[in-house]
Amino acid sequence: MSRKSIAIDMDNVIADVASHYITWYEKEYGIKVNPEALLGVPESEAFPDNAIRKFLYMPGFFRTVPVMPGAIEAVRKLMQHFDVYIVSAAMEFPQSLIEKYEWLQEHFPFISWQNIVFCGDKSIINTDYMIDDHVKNLDYCKGKTFIYTAGHNIHIDRHTRVNNWQEVVHLLEQEIK
Amino acid sequence: MSRKSIAIDMDNVIADVASHYITWYEKEYGIKVNPEALLGVPESEAFPDNAIRKFLYMPGFFRTVPVMPGAIEAVRKLMQHFDVYIVSAAMEFPQSLIEKYEWLQEHFPFISWQNIVFCGDKSIINTDYMIDDHVKNLDYCKGKTFIYTAGHNIHIDRHTRVNNWQEVVHLLEQEIK
Repeated sequence: MSRKSIAIDMDNVIADVASHYITWYEKEYGIKVNPEALLGVPESEAFPDNAIRKFLYMPGFFRTVPVMPGAIEAVRKLMQHFDVYIVSAAMEFPQSLIEKYEWLQEHFPFISWQNIVFCGDKSIINTDYMIDDHVKNLDYCKGKTFIYTAGHNIHIDRHTRVNNWQEVVHLLEQEIK
Repeated sequence: MSRKSIAIDMDNVIADVASHYITWYEKEYGIKVNPEALLGVPESEAFPDNAIRKFLYMPGFFRTVPVMPGAIEAVRKLMQHFDVYIVSAAMEFPQSLIEKYEWLQEHFPFISWQNIVFCGDKSIINTDYMIDDHVKNLDYCKGKTFIYTAGHNIHIDRHTRVNNWQEVVHLLEQEIK
């Protein structure tokens, strides 16, 4: 049987962007936002005046985002049985391209450049599985979809929900049995 | 009827990399290579000692490549009837990411960031049509494939050959009738 392919998103999936927003927001405005305040709120409304949007254009933001807990071990495990592609809608922020590439080199050096995709929309990406926090990406996918829990998506119920990387590995291991 | 999608490659398709190799090679070694010397020869053997490979890592190389004759007008025409995606296997040369983005901004400003894809291999790209000079990309494509003539591919006969952008437009216009 040929190996199945998985498209794994970066922001809010292997990269803990929500924590990074909170850290940068506190550094900039001196206010520590409670992570629970992000639950059920669109990303653009999660911080006053959509202040975090400017972070997305600031040099160093994407380069310094923390890794999502458990992501490195989980991706390594999945690569034993699947062709794993990292697929990030990075094109909106061109300065992020090299930062995201270097971030992957640092934290996921075992992922080949051949398996990295930076795109705009993900509608032409065709994999057997997709793990993403945004329905705008998952809704296009012809394969099985997993929505990785993020504050902005907790009310979505049309994709299989995963709350952490242990759950992802558990569900995908069932697929190879 | 919903619009069909086309994946268009950059190097040797909308970007005239072969001419650029000749220019940079002459600048570096003082020898003007005849374009006909590239016909039927693998890219790696087209110049002595594979000298051109180092150009791919040099800052400015991708940023300054000339546009393939007729490409701008042709892409603009195709966009009237198709969803056009620029899909470049840029990931092998990370410094090229921003250069290729800026090059597209300069020469193809009418292409949205949403329609740009920089990847490694193209096996997970799913479009109705693909225009590329490399069989390693075309062979994976589930849609109709067009091989854009380049020195290294003149002996390939398993994809529909196009020799210039006028031919591409002519063939694709038949598809919408």
